[in-house]
Parts: sequence; C-alpha cells; structure tokens
Amino acid sequence: MNLPSTFDPGVVAALDALDAGAIRHVFFVACGGSLSIMHPAKFLLDQHSPLPSDVYNGAEFVARAPRSLDERSLVILCSMTGTTKETTAAAEFARSRGAKTIGLTVEPASPLGRAVDHVVGFEAPYTTGVPIDAKDSNYSRIYQVVLGLVARTGGENLTQPLIDSLHALQPAIDRAHVAFAPLFADYAPRFAKEDVIYTVASGASYGAAYSFAICVLMEMQWINSQAIHANEFFHGPFEVLDKDRAFILMKGLDSTRPLEERADTFLHRFGSAENILVLDAATLDMSGIDPRFQGNVAPLIFFDTLWRFAYKIADLRQHEMLTARRYMKKISY
Amino acid sequence: MNLPSTFDPGVVAALDALDAGAIRHVFFVACGGSLSIMHPAKFLLDQHSPLPSDVYNGAEFVARAPRSLDERSLVILCSMTGTTKETTAAAEFARSRGAKTIGLTVEPASPLGRAVDHVVGFEAPYTTGVPIDAKDSNYSRIYQVVLGLVARTGGENLTQPLIDSLHALQPAIDRAHVAFAPLFADYAPRFAKEDVIYTVASGASYGAAYSFAICVLMEMQWINSQAIHANEFFHGPFEVLDKDRAFILMKGLDSTRPLEERADTFLHRFGSAENILVLDAATLDMSGIDPRFQGNVAPLIFFDTLWRFAYKIADLRQHEMLTARRYMKKISY
Repeated sequence: MNLPSTFDPGVVAALDALDAGAIRHVFFVACGGSLSIMHPAKFLLDQHSPLPSDVYNGAEFVARAPRSLDERSLVILCSMTGTTKETTAAAEFARSRGAKTIGLTVEPASPLGRAVDHVVGFEAPYTTGVPIDAKDSNYSRIYQVVLGLVARTGGENLTQPLIDSLHALQPAIDRAHVAFAPLFADYAPRFAKEDVIYTVASGASYGAAYSFAICVLMEMQWINSQAIHANEFFHGPFEVLDKDRAFILMKGLDSTRPLEERADTFLHRFGSAENILVLDAATLDMSGIDPRFQGNVAPLIFFDTLWRFAYKIADLRQHEMLTARRYMKKISY
Repeated sequence: MNLPSTFDPGVVAALDALDAGAIRHVFFVACGGSLSIMHPAKFLLDQHSPLPSDVYNGAEFVARAPRSLDERSLVILCSMTGTTKETTAAAEFARSRGAKTIGLTVEPASPLGRAVDHVVGFEAPYTTGVPIDAKDSNYSRIYQVVLGLVARTGGENLTQPLIDSLHALQPAIDRAHVAFAPLFADYAPRFAKEDVIYTVASGASYGAAYSFAICVLMEMQWINSQAIHANEFFHGPFEVLDKDRAFILMKGLDSTRPLEERADTFLHRFGSAENILVLDAATLDMSGIDPRFQGNVAPLIFFDTLWRFAYKIADLRQHEMLTARRYMKKISY
C-alpha cells in the first residue's frame, strides 16, 4: 500500500522500513510539551485500530520497563531539540529490548535523532520565531505516522483525507487567530492577575490542555495550574470553583465533546463568565478539513492560538515568555 | 491453577468464571478517587505481564470507544458506592461490546454491582468511620485480580506471596501512622495556610498523589492542587517552585524511586525544607511484606496515613473534611 505522495518523506521512509504487520504494541514516549502530543496520537490510534498502545514519560518508561516491550514493539519518541536526556535514554532502552524506534525532532543530528532507527523531522515556530505551516508541525507528522501505521496493519486507509486535511490546517489556524482575538483581548487583563488558572479538556484535546498548563502557565509564567480532564472535573476538582476562579475550557470536535459541554455548563452555572475562557472549535471555519479529522486537529488550533493569549498575559505581567526561567536551561540538575 | 485459599472469595469467583487465556486487553475504568487505584493496578500488570491495558475515566472510555474493545477484553471497574453514573454506563457499554466485566464496589447491590458480570466487594473506612483491615481495601482486591490474571495467562504465579504481603499490610500501616505522626504535626500548621499544595510521585505511587490532590485537597479542602509526575516536574512544573511553595513528595519503593529521589533533591535545593513534606517509604518498617510488593503497597500506606494529615489541616482551617462541599452530592448536575 503506497502512502500519498504528499506525505512527509521522513514519515514515508520510516514506515517503509518497518515490518508493520509484525508490530504488536505501540509506545508513545516523551517528556513535557512533547509528551502532550502523545495523548492525541494515542486517541487517534485508539479510534482507528485495535493495536494496543501506551503513553509514557521517558523516565517512567525506562524505570517501569513494561513486560510487553520487545522486538514486536514500535516506540515513537519526540523531543523538539532532540536533547531531552530522558527521551534519548528511552530510545536507547527500547532498542536494547529489540524494539523499533521512530524519533520526531526538529534536529535530526541531535542525540535523539542519532539514538533512533528512523528520524522524522518537523518544524517548530517558537524556537526561531519564524512562522511555520501546520502541515510541518509535530502534530501533523505524528498523525501521519499513526494513520500510515493503521493503513498498513489492516485498518482503514485514511491517509489521503488526513494529509489533505493537514494541508488545509494552517489557513484554519490563521482564521482562528482572528476569530479568537477579541476573546483574548477581553480575558487577558483579568487572567494576567490570576495566581491559579486551570485548563479543562478531554479526548483529543487533553494533551493541549496539559501542555498549556505545564509548559506555558507554570513554566513560562509561574502561574499555578493543572490540566483537569473534563469528566474528572466532576469527581473532586470542581469543588475549587467559585466566582473568582479562572478556567480555560477547550471544547473540541471529537467524540468526547459532550464531556466538555457538561463542564462548560457547570463552569458557567457556578463560576463567573468573565473568568471562564471557552475556546469552542464549533465556532471556527474548518473549511478543507475532513469532518473525520476536525476533532483531531482542534487541539493544535487551540494550542497555537493560545500562544498569542499567553504573550498578551506575559506583556501585562511583564514576565518574558521565552527567557524568564528560574531553572530550565539556566542551571544543571 | 488454584488461587490461594486466603484470596478473597469474590476475586476467586470472578477469576474462576473467566476464560483468562482468551483475554487480549484489559481496561481499568473508573472516576476520581476510584480511578486513582487503576494507575497502580496497571503498573503491577505492566511489570508482570505482556497483556496490554489502558486506564480510562468512565466517561472518556465510553466516548472514546476504543477500537480494541471487544469480546476478548476484560474491563475492570470500580466505584466505592457503586452509584457513579459514568462508571455504571461504562460497564453497560463494555458488555454491549461483548467484553467481560468485573466491578469493585462496597455495595454489591448497587447500580455498578448489578451492571457487571462479576462483583468484587471491598471495604472502605471513610464512609462509615469504622476501621478496616487493608487486606479488604480496594487496592488489595484489585491487586489480587491483577496477579490472579497474570498467573492464569502464563505469567509467574505470585499470588501466594502477594496475599501474604496483603495480610501483613495493616500492621505496616499502623506503624507508619506512628512513624509519620511527628512529621504531620510539624507540617500541618504551615500547610493549613497554603492556597496551593502540589503532590509529586511516579510509578506505583502516582495514583495516590492524584487522589490526594483531587479528592482531598481540592474536593474536601478547596485547596488548589495538581499531582505532578516526578519526572514531568522537570519539564515545566518546577518553575513554580520557590521558597514559599508547598509540595508533598511521595518516595516509594518501586523501580521508579530514582525519579522521586531526583525530584526530592531539586525540591530541597530550591524550595524550603519546611514547605516540602516528604513521605519516604524507605524509612518504614515493612515486616512481612515481600520486597517484590513493597513498592506496590507503598501508595496505600501513603494515602492512608495522609488522611490523618488532611484531618489535621481541616481542623486548623475549620473546614470539615466530609461535609464541606459546595456541589458534590449537594446539588444535581
């Protein structure tokens, strides 16, 4: 089965080199922001294939040493710079067990790039400040890996509508920036004063909520946060809600949307609308994106647009987004 | 293969009724505090069996509808009261797909108890105030299910040392209460004044950190919290650490302990010792518990002892542990 000619050549090479029919288990392994894209990757795989999979932090993966990891495993890793030590160690561990490894990174010559069987490159805008096309993002590349794998392991071949959708994604993101701009202008002055901001999502969008909480709010703005799963919200976390508490809710378009809608109703019933920032993908123009993948790409749209919100907050707090760190890359640990 | 005569009769009946060799995938499904025990259950399974498994919130499980869910799946569910609607719906959904279901609950006559193929009862102390023996807890029962399944699917038969260890657990917990009491007396006055308290753990203990964060700190004390994975800590969250920030770190005895030790070192390097509460299982007397299971039972010891810490905080805050709720079981939602 040939992959579409518009697929990323790195993805094609990695999948062509793989005996896909021999794969019995997929491990998605990374740390922090890169781990966050593994949740939507597993969500996509779960809904399209019976192939079992796990999502693990790199150090957890090595220390846990799952019994199922063997030569029939495919381990998909990601590190933007390719220098994340735990992720590189995870790749080496996986190969020592005979597993096949694919590493996603911006730097193919990096330690992670050298540690894996196959490198899939991607582009990231926030390291260089140069805008990218979303078809070249980590989300795009890992989705191509997942649905290529699905097609080659007896599942439905959705690679063409996927890649066509990914090529239509950047214009959708550009439109979303315009659509959400008034919302961000409205909420930023209030959210900039908050000491705690929670993010809420489920399904394909949970990873984006996780990443915004730990990499943006906590890491870059030193704001306390947690990504709350939209249904777990009702089993404890919702008790912190009052009229003053700030939440960012992502309402996606995947099959778990009703969970996010229920959280939305509750948040507005007992919180203040001015402290509940709702990003609703149903309000966006998704032209060119196959309805089957609109839910899968929604988190990338949320995350990309939320960067502008984060910069607004950073300006108001006079807390630099990319340089204000106490520890990360400033000290050794 | 016969299970030990000291195994719980409910577990034995459930496993005896199961064609274990036909099982291809295990789903651990629950919500909130009951979901928290599914993480250590999967950890135990991961380290002893190649059988693939997933941990899902009940509503996420139904909405996601994983492709792998079929008649070769075993779905293990838990709800203390058996009245958690999402978990009962998950059991019904699983059975509609032909999966086998085991439900853990204190109330076998509950909706969950009636919705599953097999009920495994357990005891819980915090509903009735009557002390229980830890061998009758949810942790004990789910661990028996997991290692019984491992033994009957071609894995090592560790059921006898497991059940012997579980029978030795309550005395270990009782000793831990004594051992941690001075620590709790020291830290409670400071932690009672905190608006944000993070919990940190990995491996078998992550679920206990999650449960203490969402069910105790957030739900019962309206204190902002997040359970931070001990290695994910270094990939964003650690930037919120300063001399004033409060953390509860669990140092367990499973194979991920080095991750928790690294977090410990960092927390003490840049935080204040007086705001970093460390529960170290290596300081405890684990007599009678097989070294192979000390890491697996550590989270139950942490969680059980931390209840006394929570009550101390509640007293100091004059915020009732079991009755002060805004929403849960007070309104319909």
